[in-house]
Amino acid sequence: MYDLIIIGGGPAGLTAGIYAQRARLKTLLLEKEVIGGQIAVSDIIENYPGFPSISGAGLMEKFEQHARGLGLEIKLTDVTDVQDKGKTKIVKTSEGDFITKTVIVATGAKPKRLGVPGEKEFTGKGVSYCATCDGPFFKGQRVLVVGGGDTAAKEALYLSRIANKIYLAHRRDQLRAEKIIQEKVLSIPNIEMLWSHVLKSMHGKIGVEKAVLQNLKDNAIKELDVEGVFIFVGINPTADFVDVEKDKNGFIKTDQNMQTSIKGIFVAGDCRTTPLKQVSTAVGDGAIAAFMAEKFVEDLS
Amino acid sequence: MYDLIIIGGGPAGLTAGIYAQRARLKTLLLEKEVIGGQIAVSDIIENYPGFPSISGAGLMEKFEQHARGLGLEIKLTDVTDVQDKGKTKIVKTSEGDFITKTVIVATGAKPKRLGVPGEKEFTGKGVSYCATCDGPFFKGQRVLVVGGGDTAAKEALYLSRIANKIYLAHRRDQLRAEKIIQEKVLSIPNIEMLWSHVLKSMHGKIGVEKAVLQNLKDNAIKELDVEGVFIFVGINPTADFVDVEKDKNGFIKTDQNMQTSIKGIFVAGDCRTTPLKQVSTAVGDGAIAAFMAEKFVEDLS
Repeated sequence: MYDLIIIGGGPAGLTAGIYAQRARLKTLLLEKEVIGGQIAVSDIIENYPGFPSISGAGLMEKFEQHARGLGLEIKLTDVTDVQDKGKTKIVKTSEGDFITKTVIVATGAKPKRLGVPGEKEFTGKGVSYCATCDGPFFKGQRVLVVGGGDTAAKEALYLSRIANKIYLAHRRDQLRAEKIIQEKVLSIPNIEMLWSHVLKSMHGKIGVEKAVLQNLKDNAIKELDVEGVFIFVGINPTADFVDVEKDKNGFIKTDQNMQTSIKGIFVAGDCRTTPLKQVSTAVGDGAIAAFMAEKFVEDLS
Repeated sequence: MYDLIIIGGGPAGLTAGIYAQRARLKTLLLEKEVIGGQIAVSDIIENYPGFPSISGAGLMEKFEQHARGLGLEIKLTDVTDVQDKGKTKIVKTSEGDFITKTVIVATGAKPKRLGVPGEKEFTGKGVSYCATCDGPFFKGQRVLVVGGGDTAAKEALYLSRIANKIYLAHRRDQLRAEKIIQEKVLSIPNIEMLWSHVLKSMHGKIGVEKAVLQNLKDNAIKELDVEGVFIFVGINPTADFVDVEKDKNGFIKTDQNMQTSIKGIFVAGDCRTTPLKQVSTAVGDGAIAAFMAEKFVEDLS
């Protein structure tokens, strides 16, 4: 029987782990894939206070060391279901069931698919959702980046140092990314902006050879010869496995105490309805969720 | 005319400064006393993810460097009033008025006074609210620490390395501090716990010589010969200068977007009604407040 099971090993989950260990809760952190979560595949993080510039992987390594240094138990396994039995919860995983008094869901979110022809078929064959993972395959080639937020802009910057030519297509006529990142993107000679353009389809024999876009202003069709297409058009929460109240996009609803609609199940980070999805905010969420989980465990006994 | 004036240079204010600079808002940070706020006088911080153990001053120096590295303008002056003029706000300081489109209040909180006889008279003459500031004066002496939360326990630990004997008096029969800190406190031979005790008065000629306590269980009076009394019994928000909705203890009410009852005035960190007061949570608040201030400025134009 655990006091707390944290599901997800990104910034929110690891912070909750740090606080839970310091609170002496008997805690287990479950992670499906990679400790650090989505942020571990980010090129550079420059807005987590205290670290003016650090790689996503480097920062997450520090978080993991911090948590493990306090004795946090971490298991790599996939959670399939969380069942509420009142005073206990059962966390079902591919390696069996775990029983716990409280749960913190910190599973974050996954990149959204566009749902256009060629996308599914060419995933891993030219279509990618992670520049730091797949960028190096496109050395000296031409790539298309789709999106206008922080991730799209930062990943375009990263790719501009590897690929020969970057097209950055965004459906609006200005980027949503942080201004400091926008300025960098617009100053890089091998990044060409395609304002008000949406991706319609991708074509090729074995991998991507051509992307077809449409200009939303005049409906003109544009064909680009590219070997890679990187899609950063938002995220979907990873929260299907837990049956708590969610908003229409599937993000988990909470109050300011990170409490979900089920007592003893808390949530932290990108998978909840937070106004901002950053390492900084995930850390704040994780601390509060662990503190509230501790209170909940104390009130049980 | 500024886009944003941040009032307070602790973790919440400096984080807001980092985000505001990256958003290219024309920003000014005003701090009354010391950059870093209350946390800069904390001995050791061990629960801000990424830094397993760092001095409060050291961590705040990193935050300040991060913010200044992005060009944040910082002025040391005292804010006396914030006036809402609709699309602009006037921030009145001892060095004149500043005009801005938005304000983030990140002024934190000050230690609470107990209000017992001798407290006011001996402040600075044996009575202190900051062990890292005044602890070294009590080398080899006997001191009383009052309180049971994180701050009281951590400051008692710090003082145990300087003073000869520490009495830690708490009105309850267990500490509220993080368990890991409780364990440390209870394992230190020169810290003596006085459970269920409250401080009634302090006496002496020029400085503190004697503290009088009462046992809440049997009402017995206890006199201690001590040269120092350190009081850590909670905090009061620093928010008198701004006329927004507050709770009964004076903490500023906000929604999850850090918005106060006045449009364009946001708040972050310890001076708001947050469930937890930590560097981690101040950082999350500061990021959200700056992001919302940016949106507010964009919507104005």
